[in-house]
Amino acid sequence: MDLRPPVVRALLEELTQLPGVGARTAARLAQHLLQRPEYGRRLAGAVEAAGARVRHCARCWLLAEEEECVVCRDPGRDRSQVCVVEDPFNAWSIEATGEYTGSYHVLMGALDPLHGVGPEELTVDALLARVQAGEGREVIVATNPTVEGEATAYYLLRMLRPLGVSVSRIAFGLPAGGEISYADGVTLARAMAGRRGMD
Amino acid sequence: MDLRPPVVRALLEELTQLPGVGARTAARLAQHLLQRPEYGRRLAGAVEAAGARVRHCARCWLLAEEEECVVCRDPGRDRSQVCVVEDPFNAWSIEATGEYTGSYHVLMGALDPLHGVGPEELTVDALLARVQAGEGREVIVATNPTVEGEATAYYLLRMLRPLGVSVSRIAFGLPAGGEISYADGVTLARAMAGRRGMD
Repeated sequence: MDLRPPVVRALLEELTQLPGVGARTAARLAQHLLQRPEYGRRLAGAVEAAGARVRHCARCWLLAEEEECVVCRDPGRDRSQVCVVEDPFNAWSIEATGEYTGSYHVLMGALDPLHGVGPEELTVDALLARVQAGEGREVIVATNPTVEGEATAYYLLRMLRPLGVSVSRIAFGLPAGGEISYADGVTLARAMAGRRGMD
Repeated sequence: MDLRPPVVRALLEELTQLPGVGARTAARLAQHLLQRPEYGRRLAGAVEAAGARVRHCARCWLLAEEEECVVCRDPGRDRSQVCVVEDPFNAWSIEATGEYTGSYHVLMGALDPLHGVGPEELTVDALLARVQAGEGREVIVATNPTVEGEATAYYLLRMLRPLGVSVSRIAFGLPAGGEISYADGVTLARAMAGRRGMD
């Protein structure tokens, strides 16, 4: 006999769709939530509010609640540098090193032809437009050190070189196959500092 | 500079209050949710619905959406056995063995005087009332094999014995598939002490 009330079963089903959450973890999370209905309401509200109010910065595609993100609205940030990342979360990690003062550009993914992700699926055109408008004399390509990230980096190099800007790639202090968001701050700071021209 | 919009920061704060979720896991969960707003809405709805609609069975304190749980509403369940557990989730595990056909009673915790949990904080009175009303000729105490669970078991024995019912405790010993050399001393001592004739 299934002792789980239907709403609890539905909750468990949704929870197991979170990354890294199996049946046992889902049960533990559900238990935590059911024993704290007040917290459950707060969490549900936070998930909902984030989903409803977060959008991408119209200029650089970082996460924002307004038209433009905090970086693009800050006149103190160096617009001559554009750090290109695959997703907004990778930018958080780079920002957390405290050593980067330029602007960002979020590609919203990496080239992955096998899964139908071409340049049109990314924000490449917007990046090129920013560069053509005079932003980013140096473009720092901080895509992930994966096959897709590398392919994206070289694609960007090909597109950016004719525009006469300097294109650099973060250094390979990162382990191959790794994920930027999981790197420790020192490694990541070194990778940023050790960037080299791509040509 | 903190690149996380306030709603995202709020979401991360709530997520880190889940058991076993640190800053990094919270970021991964938030990323998953923000990239799938449709799923986020479903999850938030499920958390909310569960919090609003789940209650405890008025008889046995299992989780239920109606006044009584599926076990208490099933005339086929054996009311002469009551299996006492600390929380509803422990009952799910016992039920999943498929070998128990009696009813349950959820204590809603275990005795823990150091943290202010006495018998009045648990559903002990309701259990005694059920037994006095003729339910449960055998009470199977399935509290956890912890200091609190053991103390609770002996407290229940003291309260139930005068009522003339049989009180049993689930067996403790080696887990199936376990290795004697890897068992901790307490488990092994209990397995030895709990030995039973083979014929």
